[in-house]
Amino acid sequence: MESDIGFQAALEEARKGAAEGGVPIGACLVSADGKILGRGHNLRMQKGSPTIHAEIGALENAGRLPASAYQGATMYTTLSPCDMCTGACILYKVKRVVLGENKTFVGGEDYLKQRGIEVVNVNSAECEDLMKKFINEHPEEWNEDIGEE
Amino acid sequence: MESDIGFQAALEEARKGAAEGGVPIGACLVSADGKILGRGHNLRMQKGSPTIHAEIGALENAGRLPASAYQGATMYTTLSPCDMCTGACILYKVKRVVLGENKTFVGGEDYLKQRGIEVVNVNSAECEDLMKKFINEHPEEWNEDIGEE
Repeated sequence: MESDIGFQAALEEARKGAAEGGVPIGACLVSADGKILGRGHNLRMQKGSPTIHAEIGALENAGRLPASAYQGATMYTTLSPCDMCTGACILYKVKRVVLGENKTFVGGEDYLKQRGIEVVNVNSAECEDLMKKFINEHPEEWNEDIGEE
Repeated sequence: MESDIGFQAALEEARKGAAEGGVPIGACLVSADGKILGRGHNLRMQKGSPTIHAEIGALENAGRLPASAYQGATMYTTLSPCDMCTGACILYKVKRVVLGENKTFVGGEDYLKQRGIEVVNVNSAECEDLMKKFINEHPEEWNEDIGEE
C-alpha cells in the first residue's frame, strides 16, 4: 500500500503542505482502474480555510463526477480522516480509505467501517513524523483544525 | 424557528442558488449569541464543485475560528444535511442543526443525534418546493450531488 501511486501522491501533498507552513496532511483519490482523479492538501493556514482538509481538496480537485466514477475508488490520506472527511468519503461511496497513520489523531475509522468502507492503516513513520512536528510547533492551529479546545 | 434570522438567511441563500440555476440549498451558521458567522449555498452547478454544499460554504465563509466560536452555534440549512455536511457539523461541534425539510432527502439526522447534536425540522413548504422543482428539472445533477446512480 505504501508504494501505491495514490499513497505516494498523498505523501507528496503532505510534504508540500509542510513546506508551505501548513497542516501537513495530504490526500489523493484514485479510481478503480488506478488513475489519480484528484489530490490535495490541508489549506487551513495557507488559505484561512476551515473546510479544505486534504480529502476535501482531493475530491474538489477531482471536480464534478458521476457516482459511477467513485465506484471502487480509494481515498488515500496521510492521516486518519476527521468526521467531515469521513462523511465526504461516505457521501461519494468510495470503496476504501487507506490512511498513513492514526497515532497522532483517530478520526472516523469505525464509522467508515460501519458504513461499509474498507479501512487500511499503512502505519507510515513519515506521516507520523510530519504530524508530530506540526503539532509540537503549532498546537493551537492543530486544535483549531480538529475543532478542539 | 422559521422566523429566525439564521433560517431566513439560509432560505435567501437557497433562493439565490435557484436563481443561479444551481442546486437550491442554502445554509447559515449562527453563533450562540445570535450573530451570523457565515452563510452559503450549494455551488455544484455554478462552480463545478462537488464539495461546496451549502453547509460547507457557510463554514468556509465563516473563516478560521477557534473551537469556542462554534460552541452553542446553530447550523441552519434548508435541507436535511448529507453525510459530508453532517460530518462537518460534528467536527466543529455545533450545538444544533435546524433543517428546512427532509421530505425530498434524508441525510445524517440520526447520526447527528447520536453524536449529541440537537436536530430540529422546520417542515418548510418553500424549501420543499424549491427542491421538488430542481429534482424534477435536473434529476441527473441531483443524483450526482448526493452520490447516487
